[in-house]
Amino acid sequence: MRVLILGGDGYLGWPTALRFSARGHEVSVVDNFARRRWVEGAGGDSLTPIASLEDRIAAWEEVSGERIRSFPGSVEDGDFLDAVVAEIKPEAIVHYGQQPSAPYSMISRETAVETQQANVIGNLNLLFSMRDHVPDAQLVKLGTMGEYGQPEIDIEEGYIEIEHKGRKDTLPFPKLPGSLYHCSKVHDSTNIHFACRTWGLRATDLNQGVVYGIETEETAGDERLITRFDYDELFGTVLNRFCLQAVIGHPLTVYGAGQQTRGFLNIRDTLACVELAVTNPAERGEFRVFNQFTEQFSVLELAEKVKAAAEHLGYTIEIEHLENPRVEKEEHYYNAVHTKLLDLGLEPTLLGDELVETMLHAIERHKANVVATAAIDPRTRWNPAKSPAGQA
Amino acid sequence: MRVLILGGDGYLGWPTALRFSARGHEVSVVDNFARRRWVEGAGGDSLTPIASLEDRIAAWEEVSGERIRSFPGSVEDGDFLDAVVAEIKPEAIVHYGQQPSAPYSMISRETAVETQQANVIGNLNLLFSMRDHVPDAQLVKLGTMGEYGQPEIDIEEGYIEIEHKGRKDTLPFPKLPGSLYHCSKVHDSTNIHFACRTWGLRATDLNQGVVYGIETEETAGDERLITRFDYDELFGTVLNRFCLQAVIGHPLTVYGAGQQTRGFLNIRDTLACVELAVTNPAERGEFRVFNQFTEQFSVLELAEKVKAAAEHLGYTIEIEHLENPRVEKEEHYYNAVHTKLLDLGLEPTLLGDELVETMLHAIERHKANVVATAAIDPRTRWNPAKSPAGQA
Repeated sequence: MRVLILGGDGYLGWPTALRFSARGHEVSVVDNFARRRWVEGAGGDSLTPIASLEDRIAAWEEVSGERIRSFPGSVEDGDFLDAVVAEIKPEAIVHYGQQPSAPYSMISRETAVETQQANVIGNLNLLFSMRDHVPDAQLVKLGTMGEYGQPEIDIEEGYIEIEHKGRKDTLPFPKLPGSLYHCSKVHDSTNIHFACRTWGLRATDLNQGVVYGIETEETAGDERLITRFDYDELFGTVLNRFCLQAVIGHPLTVYGAGQQTRGFLNIRDTLACVELAVTNPAERGEFRVFNQFTEQFSVLELAEKVKAAAEHLGYTIEIEHLENPRVEKEEHYYNAVHTKLLDLGLEPTLLGDELVETMLHAIERHKANVVATAAIDPRTRWNPAKSPAGQA
Repeated sequence: MRVLILGGDGYLGWPTALRFSARGHEVSVVDNFARRRWVEGAGGDSLTPIASLEDRIAAWEEVSGERIRSFPGSVEDGDFLDAVVAEIKPEAIVHYGQQPSAPYSMISRETAVETQQANVIGNLNLLFSMRDHVPDAQLVKLGTMGEYGQPEIDIEEGYIEIEHKGRKDTLPFPKLPGSLYHCSKVHDSTNIHFACRTWGLRATDLNQGVVYGIETEETAGDERLITRFDYDELFGTVLNRFCLQAVIGHPLTVYGAGQQTRGFLNIRDTLACVELAVTNPAERGEFRVFNQFTEQFSVLELAEKVKAAAEHLGYTIEIEHLENPRVEKEEHYYNAVHTKLLDLGLEPTLLGDELVETMLHAIERHKANVVATAAIDPRTRWNPAKSPAGQA
């Protein structure tokens, strides 16, 4: 199958490209390397030493004999993207090519605009290119569980049947996104749904939980194939950050009391889910939504898991409760349905102590690369008018 | 009160500016004159001969003694908009400054991107400027009834109480927008709601029906104060188009069987509603949604009303059913609640025969200006892959 991966140089995009290539698909990747620039611009850096996309592709060819084509450029550039889609004629498009950080979107008007513009316009360009060149191809788009926010009712997978004044309809699940980044993902969902209804495109929106982990089957085989691993306040995800903090002797940074509950999944499961979506395509005109996570934890539970595993390895761990820089409910109801991917055959990699220890060991191997401890503590506030005590 | 009108040169923005000025408010307007360019670019032109914004403002000062300040520029230019908001420090902002045409957004990738970029980024810029300079000001934003689409249940005003698996919450009403323009308005609603929850802004989203009419109290007094009136396929609204078609002897262009039902309101009621929203502000942190229309009609009912009124004046009228260029349900359930503005005191101007005849007479006065009959018939198709019989 011809598979096009947008954002194929990223934390998830690169391992996804390898996964499809290893399975014998013809893989092409698009990336504009914005993620590398954003992280460096914020004073962070990948813990893992990642080579250039070109060098990684060459290493993969050496290891596997498989060739991945790369198209450097931005999905925001509609003419560029259109030319790539017209040339490749992909049968499946996996779209990771977006600004993926909630706190980055909340730094300033400029980063908020950059986020919504990159994400919404890039995705809109893609929908037109699919309509015009590959209307039968399937789109697998990465969304986020954070689109739903924290409603007082159970979160369903994309749609909810509503009974109202004696009539019934199944409608898009209402969204309460938690940042301007999350808003951009809601906008994308609205646009994709429209394109499916109007042009008969087929799409799967993977509302993903928080991803953790370093290695996948393909990247673990050769150090040159490793994917990026971010730990700064903007681009690092919470469990990855806690594991790194444990290894370098930084207190685990829990925001507020830490009762915020979210869905989580291992990076290996991200790849499994994307593959399941591609191999079990949506129908023409169907906009399908899967909630893509395997377990729910509170942030404090995660910190305690990391603390226990790290102490087992001989580390001394402190958990620090910082004033929450986000505007969110800290104590809240949270119960999100996530059965559709299990129904398709997903076998979850659950977060046991052993898995945390494996992550800690992997981080130890690269510990010397940690240059950006200053970028670890949260500085980006959702509401700057509410500064924490002691700050202007 | 200091009132800032974004899009103050437009069909609704200009009369709104006059209305607030006539009531003794300090009015400033922002406009980049994109509407004039879009209409001309599409081969259309305002039926009414409108002077430049500068000349209209001078005429208004002559007539009323009141001064309106104008700031030429685009809301998409965040630095420009921020400087205006910082200088004016408005207490109320009425935001009409957007690309307002559904068919325009469906012409091509370029016009779709232009629409979502102008609307979403402009509105996002505004939210940041309000947060930073006038967090207590109220935003009155023009949305559209077309955000809701055609659900099988009654449409509520912005929110719906949902009972689900033994729990309850009041959540944003699910949206099924009918074009990429309508999608942009849904995106705006999502962003504004987020800004109210997160920054404590106050906002009213006026989900407006289809507006018709030419004159308002203030514009009727002096020919130089007249507002624009579009009748082309892109920027003309349906009743305005039917009235013009009747006067120039063009068949009334009904799309499909014409059973599509929508909410409608008179341009005078638009001004009344905006004024009611401003004089009865939302609370801090509140995102309030009003469904702003006064009557529901099917498209065919409207055509028949125009036919009857025009025949009464001696015209011969033909109703032509064209293949529907839109992708929409033609026969559908439609019942939308619209009581909140009535509760605030709105006294609707209903669409009687007399009102249609008044519109026909007003159009007759400017009939000589009709230059763009070629721009009347629909050419923009929601799904170009489904061409009508006889076309490629």
